[in-house]
Amino acid sequence: MGRWEPNAQGRLAQAALELYGERGFVQTTVAEIAKRAGLTERTFFRHFADKREVLFWGAAALQDLLVRTLDAVPVSAAPIDAVAVAIEAAAAEIQQGREFSGQRQAVIDANPELQERELIKLATLAAALAETLRRRGVTDPTASLTAEAGIAVFKVAFETWIADPTRLDFPQLIRQTLDELKKATAGGSFRP
Amino acid sequence: MGRWEPNAQGRLAQAALELYGERGFVQTTVAEIAKRAGLTERTFFRHFADKREVLFWGAAALQDLLVRTLDAVPVSAAPIDAVAVAIEAAAAEIQQGREFSGQRQAVIDANPELQERELIKLATLAAALAETLRRRGVTDPTASLTAEAGIAVFKVAFETWIADPTRLDFPQLIRQTLDELKKATAGGSFRP
Repeated sequence: MGRWEPNAQGRLAQAALELYGERGFVQTTVAEIAKRAGLTERTFFRHFADKREVLFWGAAALQDLLVRTLDAVPVSAAPIDAVAVAIEAAAAEIQQGREFSGQRQAVIDANPELQERELIKLATLAAALAETLRRRGVTDPTASLTAEAGIAVFKVAFETWIADPTRLDFPQLIRQTLDELKKATAGGSFRP
Repeated sequence: MGRWEPNAQGRLAQAALELYGERGFVQTTVAEIAKRAGLTERTFFRHFADKREVLFWGAAALQDLLVRTLDAVPVSAAPIDAVAVAIEAAAAEIQQGREFSGQRQAVIDANPELQERELIKLATLAAALAETLRRRGVTDPTASLTAEAGIAVFKVAFETWIADPTRLDFPQLIRQTLDELKKATAGGSFRP
């Protein structure tokens, strides 16, 4: 998620990602990550709970960005349009670290345990969007459904973006995927 | 999921659910579950990998029902309408065990570990629906988005149904929630 800062946390995350790619996530130890980053294990554990969390350290910042962006959209906007603005902002941020995102996804794809953690991350983001919509006066089930729809669009657009190196504009892909969702849920109009 | 069969598996599941409600999921042991069911621990492990899986033994049958029902809808139907038929069939099946569903949900709500497992279950069901749509000739991203939308509707409708004992018709609630999703994704039409 986002750009690397040349601080201890960033160096540890980069070292971890390199090692996960070279040796596999399961085989890599915290001692090896710390050594590669030129830091101690103690420093590692000051920044991360375990080697799995290195891959999810950007989740809190991503959630903040989604909530802040959503909150800044005028409440007169339709909820789905407000959520679209938020996930486009998240996509723009993620896009600045495309190489990191691709390496991270390769590690996650190779480890079911990490896929589960990724599902939890996405569910947490959906819950945060739904809660923000409710605070803005959107009632359920609309708040929950809009948040789930937004995260579904984010997930599917991310998979498309990361799978195809020629797809450079992730925010634009978010918008296209949302249009596809609108067509898909409307029904009937896209069959051959 | 569904009706109890008076076999060993059903007796074990019912005993487990009673104990999870009485003592809590974490505190309950497999030995206690087996004893309550009048069976041995060995029999328990013939049917379930662990005490967590007792709560998810219906997932495979639910997936079969979704896939079979979706496959039986004519391919001329719009994907979202075909998926709606499938999740309504799942809702009709689940509705026959409402008390079980309510007890199960209370246990899950009280245990983050179980909520994670439930997320994995829902993601697995979405993947199965998407794969079935692809086999029926629906291309991506429509297949993935339609499956995600269907599972989002299922999840939100289930929460509404289980939270309100006066909401008796779960399949009807699925249809209403899908209509809400259509309104929500269309945007603009449901704001005060």
